Order: sequence, then structure tokens, then C-alpha cells
Amino acid sequence: MANKAITSRDVDFAKWYTDVVTAAKLASYSNVKGCVIFEPNGWAIWERIQQEMDKMFKKTGHRNVAMPMLIPESLINKEGELIEGFAPEVAWVTEGGQKKLEERLCIRPTSESLFSDYYSSVVKSYRDLPMKYNQWCSVMRWEKETRPFLRSREFFWQEGHTVHATKEEAEEETIGMLNVYKTFFEDYLAVPVVAGLKTEKEKFAGAEYTYTIEALMHNGIALQSGTSHYFGQKFAKAYDIKFLNKNNELEYCYQTSWGVSNRMIGALIMVHGDDNGLVLPPKIAPKQVVIIPIGDTENVINTVDAIYNDLEKAGVSVYVDNTEKSPGFKFAEAEVNGVPVRIEVGKRDLENNNITVARRDTSEKMVISKDSDIVNYVTDLMNDIQNNLYNKAKKHLESLTFEARTKEEVEKIMNEHPGFVKADWCGDLECELKMKEIKGTKSRCILEHEKPLTGKCVMCGKEAKHLVVWGIQY
Amino acid sequence: MANKAITSRDVDFAKWYTDVVTAAKLASYSNVKGCVIFEPNGWAIWERIQQEMDKMFKKTGHRNVAMPMLIPESLINKEGELIEGFAPEVAWVTEGGQKKLEERLCIRPTSESLFSDYYSSVVKSYRDLPMKYNQWCSVMRWEKETRPFLRSREFFWQEGHTVHATKEEAEEETIGMLNVYKTFFEDYLAVPVVAGLKTEKEKFAGAEYTYTIEALMHNGIALQSGTSHYFGQKFAKAYDIKFLNKNNELEYCYQTSWGVSNRMIGALIMVHGDDNGLVLPPKIAPKQVVIIPIGDTENVINTVDAIYNDLEKAGVSVYVDNTEKSPGFKFAEAEVNGVPVRIEVGKRDLENNNITVARRDTSEKMVISKDSDIVNYVTDLMNDIQNNLYNKAKKHLESLTFEARTKEEVEKIMNEHPGFVKADWCGDLECELKMKEIKGTKSRCILEHEKPLTGKCVMCGKEAKHLVVWGIQY
Repeated sequence: MANKAITSRDVDFAKWYTDVVTAAKLASYSNVKGCVIFEPNGWAIWERIQQEMDKMFKKTGHRNVAMPMLIPESLINKEGELIEGFAPEVAWVTEGGQKKLEERLCIRPTSESLFSDYYSSVVKSYRDLPMKYNQWCSVMRWEKETRPFLRSREFFWQEGHTVHATKEEAEEETIGMLNVYKTFFEDYLAVPVVAGLKTEKEKFAGAEYTYTIEALMHNGIALQSGTSHYFGQKFAKAYDIKFLNKNNELEYCYQTSWGVSNRMIGALIMVHGDDNGLVLPPKIAPKQVVIIPIGDTENVINTVDAIYNDLEKAGVSVYVDNTEKSPGFKFAEAEVNGVPVRIEVGKRDLENNNITVARRDTSEKMVISKDSDIVNYVTDLMNDIQNNLYNKAKKHLESLTFEARTKEEVEKIMNEHPGFVKADWCGDLECELKMKEIKGTKSRCILEHEKPLTGKCVMCGKEAKHLVVWGIQY
Repeated sequence: MANKAITSRDVDFAKWYTDVVTAAKLASYSNVKGCVIFEPNGWAIWERIQQEMDKMFKKTGHRNVAMPMLIPESLINKEGELIEGFAPEVAWVTEGGQKKLEERLCIRPTSESLFSDYYSSVVKSYRDLPMKYNQWCSVMRWEKETRPFLRSREFFWQEGHTVHATKEEAEEETIGMLNVYKTFFEDYLAVPVVAGLKTEKEKFAGAEYTYTIEALMHNGIALQSGTSHYFGQKFAKAYDIKFLNKNNELEYCYQTSWGVSNRMIGALIMVHGDDNGLVLPPKIAPKQVVIIPIGDTENVINTVDAIYNDLEKAGVSVYVDNTEKSPGFKFAEAEVNGVPVRIEVGKRDLENNNITVARRDTSEKMVISKDSDIVNYVTDLMNDIQNNLYNKAKKHLESLTFEARTKEEVEKIMNEHPGFVKADWCGDLECELKMKEIKGTKSRCILEHEKPLTGKCVMCGKEAKHLVVWGIQY
């Protein structure tokens, strides 16, 4: 029984997506063009993501800071490639305190310039290194279209910025943080990803190279989900970040940055969601279990209380829906919100000493004795749901991952059903651009450790340098 | 033995303050005029404040959201008093995506307009009410002077915004959240406050009335530390927030807002700090205990490990300073950073089966047996430190709280040593402004439940309406 407020996913995927965002009360459009409002259900998911990722960042030796949200034009202009890349999409503050400013300030589109400026003033010696800082904040990019969580002028993210004494250490950091992202996506979001190197065309403005993780949405469209950049000494030279090395010589630092954004919420929706709404993996769900009393006999009330207390004590995020709505309405609401486990405590079930447990991912209902070890049962069930969601997504990704040996094969695949297409590439920009003519297909990433399929570029037939994953992107 | 990098508090309080901020690495000035950088030590305190306050907000039924950071000029202009109050200090975005914008957008100085606009679109019936939302974010006010944590163009805060079906409920919320702030200041920050009503002149632009908590810094200067506003139906009328009440009639909502900011970090410094640097109350300290090994014998290493593991398991936030610095340097660093408890594990102490424990608040050193119940000892000690800091601050506040029955008495007090001065007031703006001529003395708050001292206004001699606390403010 599908939710009537939600267009079927197979009928119109884009409409289904916005319907889920609205029905699950994740976000709403604001009267500020290009910006969305994170409603409580949406922000609660972002808080869960922050909590878990932040632990991983801290465990790997990072500390949080906060840089200003504004960047003077002269400061952001210091690194040529960065400003060239971002100039078309920044917002400028030109008036403050009822006066025209002498210098324009942009709202940060990303904060390499601020971190670099800071590092240049505090880094003196190799003893100060590495400095591994991160900030959780919002940034502004003047986008033309808005799609909640996927594309908006203001969006929330974290940006890590680190400086190191050696190239090796900075490169380790770059790949290390990519792996943190990959682990988080797979273990918490239950979203499998493909990891690899961006092409020259697709790398971050100002980076020597960029690593990426790419997820595949249910409709076969790719979502760039997290990137990790190695800067070498580029920014260090532009912003004069020097340190005295062990030989007492002045040397430029080696630098990285890495970020993931509220796009992750978009990925959660489009990988796990269904025609009944959101489906949240237990490890990231703000509320893991809802208990719904049916009737108000003493037995019902006492049983609800007992189960609630046991689960709560065990550290499960649980709530009782005690509102005046009908049970059916409560079921639907918990469903559309993606709550992983629903426990129904009803008068009639209790007469047989039973309660009913429903899992959101498969819609299965289980009747179990009210005297069973419910904490254990729910904990196991949540593990099972977490694994099932990952495995289902992984299977789906695999079923939509293709190999193409000719241009025609790429075209055939993208026309039938888009997905990830592995194909050889010579490394030339021209061939990459030609690929775009096939329904906008772009390189997702280079698989550094895999050999080309045929050894010949799928577009021009010349010698292949890389095996590349291609796809159509959000 | 005072820290050489820190000017004595009694010699130059302002210099002492900035020296502590720098020496404890809390914040540094950025190259963005009027904005500071929160360095890791400073941001970690803000994170602790957020964690604990956020729990209190959620326990009292609030949920977090995120509104856009920009406000179109036409939207913020809807409520006349608000924009009149904030117009002189907003920053305007006038260009975006390489185009001049049709309408200016200001960076939020506060978000009543955005929340009101949102509520007007989602509130339909009394069943939707109350809606009690909060957001943690930064806001921008174009200040001329900068003092880290006390005054800066961009600052961090939380702003709660609620809508209710009745006046009574909204008024309860206003005073309820003031009490949450008061509890947090006293129980976590160990900062005693005076709570009361702002005068008409000092209330928030657009509010019917404003409650405030006021703290007193070590030098006798007052710090407005948190405010809670009752709006009545003012914003509801300006932004058209209507609901169908139980009688099926359309009615305007009743509204509140309340906020505290990173000023709290300034209060922590200026209430508890000393000539050795920061002093943090254990309940808010990011690191509560530091263990410093002296020597590297097996016994030292094993004892350090054992104590660390025990404390960590007990939920104490503890770290081992294993850097290559000298023990003396490590002591000084932990001291300047305000770590409440320092445990020294030294070879010589261990020969007598002892370790040394030092408390930051009194600088006392205690030698205890390494076989004692250290978790218990440290837990008790932290409670004692927390209470001692509060009691010391409370005593200080009391010693600097005066009663004045004449204008001359006010002058005498403010000239000798500023503090809180209780004095009667007739309620006229003129007398309030005259008070300002005494070294900038302003009303801090009206003590609603206390009777006037003499019954006559301290300035004009006419009948007194209120007993008011006056002070010189940051």
C-alpha cells in the first residue's frame, strides 16, 4: 500500500524524490531564492551524520576550528586556479554598516584561502606540523537550479584542511581521508561507493589531484559524494606557508583538503527510499525504533513503558507515538519518515502474550512473545536491516555496472538504462568531451589499480592510459 | 609563579584578557576585518557548550532546524521595529553569480524574519502548535570594534524561535528558557547571574518585553549573557502567522525568541581566569584531566596507562601529554589551557608508591597513594572544583553588588570600583539616560519581584516604579 502523497519511484523519479523530501518533512523551499530550509527531520539526520563522522575525524587526529564566513577579494585572488574556478559562482558583500565597502568580500564558497592565510601565520617549524583542522559550516555557491540536498546556493558540509612537512605525509592524508569517507558511506549510510582519481578536467580547482567517492542512485544516476584533494605546495607558495625543516632550511608546506556535504542526505533518500517514503539505515537514523500503542488498556500502557525503558537503557534511540492520531496514521507516518523498526503493542496481541514488530526495509511483520528478550531481538534486527540495506544497494550497483569496449556499447547502455560504465580512455580531454555527447556522460573516476579492458581508448582507438568509470551525474 | 606571556589581571584587565585568549590558543585575529578565528582550544569549549545546552533544549521539547543565512531586504523589512534596530549594522550581498542582484540580501543579524516567514507557511491549526525550533549558527553584525568572544562582526550563537496558540503558553516559554539559561550558567559554567526584565530602552527591537541574565566579570564590568523575548502577536501580524483555534476561528500566533552566544566563552575567561591563564569548570572543560609522565621507566609508563584507562572508562575526558616537551613546560601548558586536574606520575613519587594530583583552581598539590581509588578521587575533586569556582564567583559578585539610595552614592561606587548597583528608578527614559553620564552606567535589568529601596527614583526623586540593577557593560 503505497503512500498517496508520493509519486511512484518508477513513474517519475525526480517527482518521487521531491515528494519524499516533502512527505518526510526533511526540507522545504524558502522564500530565499536557491536556499532550502532544513526542517527538524532533515536536520536530525545531518546531526547524526555529523556526530558519527566527527568521531572518525577526531580519532584520526583532527581538531575542529571555525574560520570567518567572509573572504576579502584580495585574499581569495591569491591562488589563480581556485578563484578562476569559483569566480562565476560566488556572492559578494559590498555594503556593511550602511557604507559601501572599500573591498568586496565574498561569502566563502570553500575556505582554502582562509586556512592557508591562517597557516601562513602560525606555522613556523616542523615541530608545528602536521596541523590537521576541520570545520563544519555552510558555504555559498550561486547555483541556478535548486534541488534539496543535491544542489542549492547555501549548503552544509565539512571541510578539512591540513598542512604537512612532507609530500608523503600529505599524500597519505589525502588517501586516508578518502578511506574514512568510504568507510562512513558503507558502514553508516549503507551506501556502496566506487573510489578513484578524478581526471584533470574534473579535479578541484587548484588541486594537484583529487580523489572521489561516487555513489549510484536507484535510477542509475551517479552522485559525486565526497572528494579529497592533494595540493602539493601550490597554496603554500601562493599564501607563503613556510616552515623550518629539520635541516633548518625554510621549506613550503604540503597541503590537503577534503569535504563531504548534505548531499549525503540526498544519497540516503535515492539509494534506500521506496514508494512509501524514506528508509533509514539504523546506524544513522535519528530515531531507530517507534513504539505504537493500540488501545489504552493498563496492559498496553505497562507493556509500552517496559519496552521503552528497556530499549532506552540499552542505548537504542526509541520513542513512543502517544499522539491522538489513529494507529494507521501513526504507522504511515513512521514509515514515510523511514524509522527502521516499528513495535506495535495492541490489546488483542497481548491477549496471546504477543507484540508485533515490523521492519521498514522489507515491510515484514513479525509476531513475537512479549516475554522474549526484546532488546536483543531489536538489536539483531537492526543489524540485519543495516546489512540488508547495504547488500541490496551493493547488488543494485553491481547490476548497473557495465563494461563497454566500444563507443556504441557505451551508447547502448546509456540509452537503455544509465549506470556506471567501465571503459578505456586514452587520457585526452577531447575524448572525455566527446563522451559528454552521449546523454551528458562524464568521467566519474580513474580506477588506478585496474588495467584497461582492451588497451584501446573507447572513443578514439588510441592506446588507453586508464580504465575509467563513466556515468551521468546529478 | 605567573605565566610570563600573560599581563597581570590587576595591572591591565583588558590586556590580561587578550593575553589569555592568545596564550590559551582560543582564538586569533583573522585578516577579515572584524572577524576572529576560533582555534581548536576555543572551538572545543564552544562544542562542549553546544552539547550540554542542546540536551537541555531537546529535553524541553525543542527541535533543531537550519534557516538560510541570507534574508531578502523585502522580507526583513516587514517588521518595522526589527529592521529599524538592525539596519545600521547589517551586511548586504548585492552581487551573485557575476550579476548585480535585483534585490539586496542581508546576512542574517538574527532570524525572526525567516522563522516567521516559515511559520506563516506551515502553521494551519492549533493542532500544529506549539512549534518550538532552534538553530545553532553564526550571524553577522557590522560592529566597529572587535574583542574576541565579546564583540565581533560574525559571532556564533543559538537562536530559539517558537510559536504558540496562547499568550500564557508563549509567556511561559519566555521565562522558561530564561531559566534554562540561568541553570546552564550556574550549573555548567559556574557563573552566577542576575535575572530580570530589560527596560523599554534596552529591550530587543520588536519585542514586547525582554528577559535577560547578567553576569559580572572579575573587574566588576557587567556582561549581558543571554536574552529571552516575548513578541506577543507583533511578528505574527507582520508576517501573517495565523491558525485555526479550537473555536474554528482564525487567530494570530503568540511568539518568542531567545539566544545565547559565544560571549559565554568570554564570561568563562573573565569570571574564572587568573594570571596563569584560563580556569575551566570541569563540567564544561573539553579535557578535564591531563596525565603528565615524568621519566619513562616501565613503572611510570604502566601507571600512566592504568590511570588513563580507569579514568577514560569512567567517562572522564582525559589525555596523556606524551610530547617531547619538558615536564615544567607541560605543567604550564595545561595550566594556561585551564585543564581542571593535572596528574603527575613521576619516578621518584612512585618509589614511595605515590602520585601527585594538582587542581587548577587553587593550585594545590596533593600527594596520594597510587593504590587509592583514583577514579573516585578525581570525580570528587572535580565536583569540588566545580563548586568552588561557583562559590568564589558568587562571593565576588556579592562583594561587588551595592545598594545606592542617592545619585551621589551611585557615583561614589562607580568611581571606586564598578559592580552591580541596585537603585530605585521612576521608569522615565530621561533618568535612565542621565545615569549613563556616570561612567556609562546602564540599566542591566528590573528586579520585578523586589521592592524599591526608598520608594524614590535615585535620579529625580519622584516615585519609584522599579528596583533596577545598574552597571557598566561590555
